[in-house]
Amino acid sequence: MQLYDLRFGVIGWGYWGPKISRNLATLPNAAVTMVADSDISRLSSLNVNQPWIKTTTQASDIFNSDVDAVVIVTPVRTHFQLARQALLHGKHVLVEKPLTYSVDEAEELVALAQEQKLILMVGHTFEYNPAVNELRKLIHGGDLGKIYCIETERLNLGLFRNDINVIWDLAPHDISILLYLLDKKPVKIKVQAHANLQRHIHDVAHLDLEFDDGLNAHIHVSWLHPNKTRRVTVIGDARMAVYDDVNKAEMLKIFNKGAEIHADPVVSYRYGAITIPHFDEIEPLRLECEDFANAIRTGVQPRANGEVGLKVVKILAAAQESLQKQLELNTLLV
Amino acid sequence: MQLYDLRFGVIGWGYWGPKISRNLATLPNAAVTMVADSDISRLSSLNVNQPWIKTTTQASDIFNSDVDAVVIVTPVRTHFQLARQALLHGKHVLVEKPLTYSVDEAEELVALAQEQKLILMVGHTFEYNPAVNELRKLIHGGDLGKIYCIETERLNLGLFRNDINVIWDLAPHDISILLYLLDKKPVKIKVQAHANLQRHIHDVAHLDLEFDDGLNAHIHVSWLHPNKTRRVTVIGDARMAVYDDVNKAEMLKIFNKGAEIHADPVVSYRYGAITIPHFDEIEPLRLECEDFANAIRTGVQPRANGEVGLKVVKILAAAQESLQKQLELNTLLV
Amino acid sequence: MQLYDLRFGVIGWGYWGPKISRNLATLPNAAVTMVADSDISRLSSLNVNQPWIKTTTQASDIFNSDVDAVVIVTPVRTHFQLARQALLHGKHVLVEKPLTYSVDEAEELVALAQEQKLILMVGHTFEYNPAVNELRKLIHGGDLGKIYCIETERLNLGLFRNDINVIWDLAPHDISILLYLLDKKPVKIKVQAHANLQRHIHDVAHLDLEFDDGLNAHIHVSWLHPNKTRRVTVIGDARMAVYDDVNKAEMLKIFNKGAEIHADPVVSYRYGAITIPHFDEIEPLRLECEDFANAIRTGVQPRANGEVGLKVVKILAAAQESLQKQLELNTLLV
Amino acid sequence: MQLYDLRFGVIGWGYWGPKISRNLATLPNAAVTMVADSDISRLSSLNVNQPWIKTTTQASDIFNSDVDAVVIVTPVRTHFQLARQALLHGKHVLVEKPLTYSVDEAEELVALAQEQKLILMVGHTFEYNPAVNELRKLIHGGDLGKIYCIETERLNLGLFRNDINVIWDLAPHDISILLYLLDKKPVKIKVQAHANLQRHIHDVAHLDLEFDDGLNAHIHVSWLHPNKTRRVTVIGDARMAVYDDVNKAEMLKIFNKGAEIHADPVVSYRYGAITIPHFDEIEPLRLECEDFANAIRTGVQPRANGEVGLKVVKILAAAQESLQKQLELNTLLV
Repeated sequence: MQLYDLRFGVIGWGYWGPKISRNLATLPNAAVTMVADSDISRLSSLNVNQPWIKTTTQASDIFNSDVDAVVIVTPVRTHFQLARQALLHGKHVLVEKPLTYSVDEAEELVALAQEQKLILMVGHTFEYNPAVNELRKLIHGGDLGKIYCIETERLNLGLFRNDINVIWDLAPHDISILLYLLDKKPVKIKVQAHANLQRHIHDVAHLDLEFDDGLNAHIHVSWLHPNKTRRVTVIGDARMAVYDDVNKAEMLKIFNKGAEIHADPVVSYRYGAITIPHFDEIEPLRLECEDFANAIRTGVQPRANGEVGLKVVKILAAAQESLQKQLELNTLLV
Repeated sequence: MQLYDLRFGVIGWGYWGPKISRNLATLPNAAVTMVADSDISRLSSLNVNQPWIKTTTQASDIFNSDVDAVVIVTPVRTHFQLARQALLHGKHVLVEKPLTYSVDEAEELVALAQEQKLILMVGHTFEYNPAVNELRKLIHGGDLGKIYCIETERLNLGLFRNDINVIWDLAPHDISILLYLLDKKPVKIKVQAHANLQRHIHDVAHLDLEFDDGLNAHIHVSWLHPNKTRRVTVIGDARMAVYDDVNKAEMLKIFNKGAEIHADPVVSYRYGAITIPHFDEIEPLRLECEDFANAIRTGVQPRANGEVGLKVVKILAAAQESLQKQLELNTLLV
Repeated sequence: MQLYDLRFGVIGWGYWGPKISRNLATLPNAAVTMVADSDISRLSSLNVNQPWIKTTTQASDIFNSDVDAVVIVTPVRTHFQLARQALLHGKHVLVEKPLTYSVDEAEELVALAQEQKLILMVGHTFEYNPAVNELRKLIHGGDLGKIYCIETERLNLGLFRNDINVIWDLAPHDISILLYLLDKKPVKIKVQAHANLQRHIHDVAHLDLEFDDGLNAHIHVSWLHPNKTRRVTVIGDARMAVYDDVNKAEMLKIFNKGAEIHADPVVSYRYGAITIPHFDEIEPLRLECEDFANAIRTGVQPRANGEVGLKVVKILAAAQESLQKQLELNTLLV
Repeated sequence: MQLYDLRFGVIGWGYWGPKISRNLATLPNAAVTMVADSDISRLSSLNVNQPWIKTTTQASDIFNSDVDAVVIVTPVRTHFQLARQALLHGKHVLVEKPLTYSVDEAEELVALAQEQKLILMVGHTFEYNPAVNELRKLIHGGDLGKIYCIETERLNLGLFRNDINVIWDLAPHDISILLYLLDKKPVKIKVQAHANLQRHIHDVAHLDLEFDDGLNAHIHVSWLHPNKTRRVTVIGDARMAVYDDVNKAEMLKIFNKGAEIHADPVVSYRYGAITIPHFDEIEPLRLECEDFANAIRTGVQPRANGEVGLKVVKILAAAQESLQKQLELNTLLV
């Protein structure tokens, strides 16, 4: 008897692989049937606890297996080759964020998936967060009025990486949230970043984004901060909202307050109530996995599809370019 | 019988004038004897409640009076002329922050005060905050180790101004705190700012400062934010500290945590206790006023003296210059 | 020219006297003209800073003066005699909470004020707090549904007293809030209290009150607690509300959540949004002083009138009686 | 090849059963081999996801199996019979809290376990919490000085039960924490409780405990509260400490503050720093399971052994007795 119609293979068994695997495994009629990791020691506990899952140190074993879809949870610079191979072998693909380490690579994957009629998806988990979705509704429904600006903060002590800087590591979340909230892309980007701990690997960064209607956004990411912070502040002319992912009991606060310009006196202020919607506890990663399975089964593009992943990579690449130019652009103090 | 030996005149009777006056009036052997404001309606309640204070709509009446010292609490662009006149009339001067609206003006005032052997002081109130002083001790005593970077945030809804932007209005506090904490000045500054509400008057700004030893600082100021925030985060390699002026019960938190680079694995993390020192409740403005009176009586320069005020104005002017250059420096996204 | 038509005399110049005096002095057409304190040293700074106020060490000087009203801010056990004398001399009276130290005394004062057609008021400041007033509206408007129970907490380190216990010192606030919120009085009271620091003076107490419709309330007061806490929690079957006086930015939170009994399963839960109303910053003490002045001028009873003060004293006296009985009522563990 | 030497059977597969099972299953050389639940529908997902675990609707199947130990996670009133049967069948037993619903039952189980030389343990999870253990060290090491009193709060909306009241449901945690912290038992107990939602089932309760050296404790438990609260406050004459289980980042705060009695003035106050120790993230339930396995293997009594469980039941039974007496003991207000 066939208990499932959807077989997943997972490449990369570090911190995130087991989490995503646990969610995939409990989808109706789905199973994780193979796991690959080049480090064999990571596979041993899996062999003991879930002996029915095949393990291998070769990703190619997964490509050549009967799995329907491959989940790639490996270092960023390996995403492109692994995803390309998977698509070429006819597998649907979910890649961890960011999709790739260059725009060319991302474009090639998107084109390949389209050609092969396969689902290509990227792990922008926060697009599946209920507070982010409520915020999107508030923006698009006009509740916040005209949006002036958005600020995001994603700060903590660690986890430092030595293959990519903090922008490539953390900002994909904030950029994907911004694109999802606004449905439009920035036209300008400027970066201020510093490499405090490791030489040449920036661990604190500020990204300033401008959109063509004057809307602007600021992204602050850091591996070097005492307090874990994950916050998005949206400033509209009717209302302001703060989504604080760390404060589970009050994840979204909507402030009915603002300022208005007048001839005289120049500005007046409006202060009203704060509203905090309730959200049922649903793991966003669960919803992401459901969207992937559903996309495979129905052919409907998932929310965080390859096109979205490409847009995020374009902004990351522009940020990287801005960062490399930043030295000569500084104003010298006398 | 002479009840006091120090007479103060106050120019400007808006929000801050009465506050500073209340503190000056309760210093031992000191009195506020004259108040000037060009708007006569502001003086009426003063006439009723403190009828022994002379009031006038002409600042010149104060310059020509017998007051020993003048406190200038007026719009920034008037600071220079009023302070200059006061010094020329032989009065000691305390000016609200920032000292002036240009470097030239600040330099002239500093030179004039020196020439006239008069005290020139600027209202950098936060240099008198006990948490800032404790933070300075921790930095200079080596408790925080090598300082990587400092982040400051000063955000709220309002108070919008139409004569100066948010940098000139709020950043003087953060810059004076930084200079006081570090005893050194930045060599580079870069600004990202946006004028959201009023055309041409920037209401949100990010200042990025670099010091010649690699230390960097980031100042975030905003008139357009739902939550009142006044925070300074200092990241050292031994400890991290957060001074949160809004959280009176836990104003300074010292985190015994950090990250260290190793060959393999790349980075390790250290997590220890948090310490929150106790501070007695003393109004920093009270200490500022005491420092002014003491400087007048003893000739010893006050902490926030004219030289310090000049340094802050130099950084503000460089920030303004960076801001004006920012458009052409942006990286365009394709 | 007569600048004011209402002259106040203040008896007691400790912590609270100057605060209430500052508020009275800024009422329209009102002035504090006399202050008495048996400790002459407390009056010296007043003589310097507000020399137009007459000072005396004899309360009787105030009774025999031309003041229209007397404010009594002295130890509880002196309230009755001072208030009685003031009323007998034809003065309106505002007494700090609690009104008196016995029911008999409170009844006598209420009768005397009525006889003399004078205003008798008690300093139940929290009845003038905007969050308490909003809470009252929510309860009476039915927004919270049927009220099950109310819990109050008033905790801090200090200020210990040696003339009265923590119940008489702090609980008057909570009892007056309860009576004001509910417009009905409890029929039963039970006390658990402990004298930890000083022998025979209870510094931590729990009061349990029952009303005849099953509604119950719990008051927790303490001088021996690390965190300053001033909180009222109202549990209704439609909504719940928390008034937290220490959290000025979010003073009142209304929770749209609850539980309902069913046959099967036994109980279901409902989770909705939290709402936090905005309150303009108005000092409740200011509103209390305005109510006193208005009552004197119009003859309309103030909110916190003598009758209300008497009700509070009755509950305090019953609590004291319950406390004295508590030892023999304890259940012994084997 | 034998992969494990310790086989566990779990009786009761609701909310807590799977959690405890997950922890037991990952102990070295241990396995959950059987699960029983009278409701067969609860076992179906287990059959799919962990098909190697035998399931049954009959607890007796577990008693008659080859498991070494039985974990009982069923309604309180069934604890005694199930634990008794398990012991009679030679199985070690871990019962959820409270151990039983009567003192006699608890005594019989303790005696039986001793007779049979089997481990009897009760699920007092909080005795394994690192913050509770640090608090115990601070108390016993004298850091807090003489302990005046302890207050505990365990509040939330739900989970209402219809078989036992809130005291039997929630207070076992607080009582076991108190006994563990203090190593002594109360001599008196007094209860104030109310049945707000369901007739005759008390959902809010205050327990007041006295120890023979004057130390006192107060336990507040509620199913009817808007904010999830799990807090223990310890007041010593040298320091005070608050353990807040809901605030994971600052679980234990130690306040170096206090009050001291003097002849004149009566009381002085001391205010010092707050310290927040760091705790590694370890699930207390994991440590509880390790203690159980270790006890079985070595014969050393576990921390939360049957004797401890009996002490807790004695206090619960005394609380219940006090509760039933409470009506006639109330003081009537006139």
